[in-house]
Amino acid sequence: MGLVQTKDQQLFIGVDGGGSKCRATIYTADGTVLGTGVAGRANPLHGLAQTFASIEASTRQALLDAGMKETDSHLLVAGLGLAGVNVPRLYQDVISWQHPFAAMYVTTDLHTACIGAHRGADGAVIITGTGSCGYAHVGDDSLSIGGHGFALGDKGSGAWLGLKAAEHVLLALDGFATPTALTEMLLKHFGVSDALGIVEHLAGKSSSCYAELARSVLDCANAGDEVARGIVQEGADYISEMARKLFSLNPVRFSMIGGLAEPLQAWLGSDVVAKISETLAPPELGAMYFAQQQFNSVNINE
Amino acid sequence: MGLVQTKDQQLFIGVDGGGSKCRATIYTADGTVLGTGVAGRANPLHGLAQTFASIEASTRQALLDAGMKETDSHLLVAGLGLAGVNVPRLYQDVISWQHPFAAMYVTTDLHTACIGAHRGADGAVIITGTGSCGYAHVGDDSLSIGGHGFALGDKGSGAWLGLKAAEHVLLALDGFATPTALTEMLLKHFGVSDALGIVEHLAGKSSSCYAELARSVLDCANAGDEVARGIVQEGADYISEMARKLFSLNPVRFSMIGGLAEPLQAWLGSDVVAKISETLAPPELGAMYFAQQQFNSVNINE
Repeated sequence: MGLVQTKDQQLFIGVDGGGSKCRATIYTADGTVLGTGVAGRANPLHGLAQTFASIEASTRQALLDAGMKETDSHLLVAGLGLAGVNVPRLYQDVISWQHPFAAMYVTTDLHTACIGAHRGADGAVIITGTGSCGYAHVGDDSLSIGGHGFALGDKGSGAWLGLKAAEHVLLALDGFATPTALTEMLLKHFGVSDALGIVEHLAGKSSSCYAELARSVLDCANAGDEVARGIVQEGADYISEMARKLFSLNPVRFSMIGGLAEPLQAWLGSDVVAKISETLAPPELGAMYFAQQQFNSVNINE
Repeated sequence: MGLVQTKDQQLFIGVDGGGSKCRATIYTADGTVLGTGVAGRANPLHGLAQTFASIEASTRQALLDAGMKETDSHLLVAGLGLAGVNVPRLYQDVISWQHPFAAMYVTTDLHTACIGAHRGADGAVIITGTGSCGYAHVGDDSLSIGGHGFALGDKGSGAWLGLKAAEHVLLALDGFATPTALTEMLLKHFGVSDALGIVEHLAGKSSSCYAELARSVLDCANAGDEVARGIVQEGADYISEMARKLFSLNPVRFSMIGGLAEPLQAWLGSDVVAKISETLAPPELGAMYFAQQQFNSVNINE
């Protein structure tokens, strides 16, 4: 199996899969980082083959970064935090994978992010990056909110901001609404002059392509554009309401994670902002903690 | 080349590609139907390979239906009406296809639908099926509105109605809104009991899967469900406004085409409904007229 002899010597890899990238970090049993790797999107909801390929690619990078061989993945006990594995069918698909690790433990990306943010302690998190979702774990209770994916849910996420902006700009260019600075921004972003040019750049594209527009939408909103302000405030209101639902479990700590966590703060309710604590460790360490706990409980009699 | 000797004997095939199916009909030069075939979706915006496969499959069916051989497509002059070919890159991709026909002429599905609806005369059309879009052709002027595709545009279409309903139901099931009859309808539609069950059925799915929900959303609206009424009315208002923009070209005739054209009528502005004329011929015949006109003008000196 490639497992090393004692628990203290066992190496772990924590993997954080997401809608735009997959990050993997190799740790010793005491949490020391040996090496990291990053690859493309790893979201089982949007393709298993790509998810597995991204996990393998980020693992290979992490192994090389750690001074190990690309083929040494069989030495690692893996913890995977992946979107969509709360769906039973997808969980089955992922754990059925002929993975290259000594052992593999799978949970949601929300769960591993929460474990990481509070360094193993109870708490709540909201992730707003390409997608959006919330999770709280307090004692035996846990609560998961949103995270239904692009374009079905994920209000307040980067992809949602981009989609709403593109929708509005196309309506404006077709004469159904008044063009604003947001319209100019989107045309400039793609270097095009009409609706067709925008559609050509966005049709059939993944959530990460839409999320690339989010910063510009926020810039327009912060500069006072009424349409952009309306979109950003609607998204932020949803995130604030999500936080309040998580607070119903009375979590000791609450963190916000993801590329939009900081820029969205100015738009959130002051009651929510007052409760934000810094994240203590990244989701990859949360995934490693999760794997270590599962592995040690399974191998308790070794 | 397989072209028969005189124009009067030349056979044509009119192909109407769409977001959920592809319909092909073989005609004699005077418009007599020889055979028809139907295959899966043919929308270049969402995949060229599938588009070409659907065109070939519907053509083979039409050939067999016409009592010809599956391999006789080289005898046919083809007219294709396809979504997305107003995008120059996609138009190039489609006309670069090593197609099986004697000759192939390509234009938008909107254009062929309009030619068909008014049997070659000037006029305007709105298509509301899986997607939505509008087109008018009067003299040298033409106007194309909307049709930006799922989930970027296509307000008032079947896929849009389904997406808006699913979005709202997921918010309701997460406690962000009040559940209504629409919530029960969607859970029952998929035979599931929670948000996760709905996400499992819709995540990453195509516009046609969302469009399958449209009839139920309309039923809920017609039964008085306030959320469904809000969604349907917002979509219908957009379609009414689109019609008024098309009327600015003073088209002699105006028709509405697609699976939602009839059920949406009760929700449209009375000024719009008053101008609706029946469609005189299907988009496939429009595609055939287009091909015949192009072919005869190219081969005028034969």
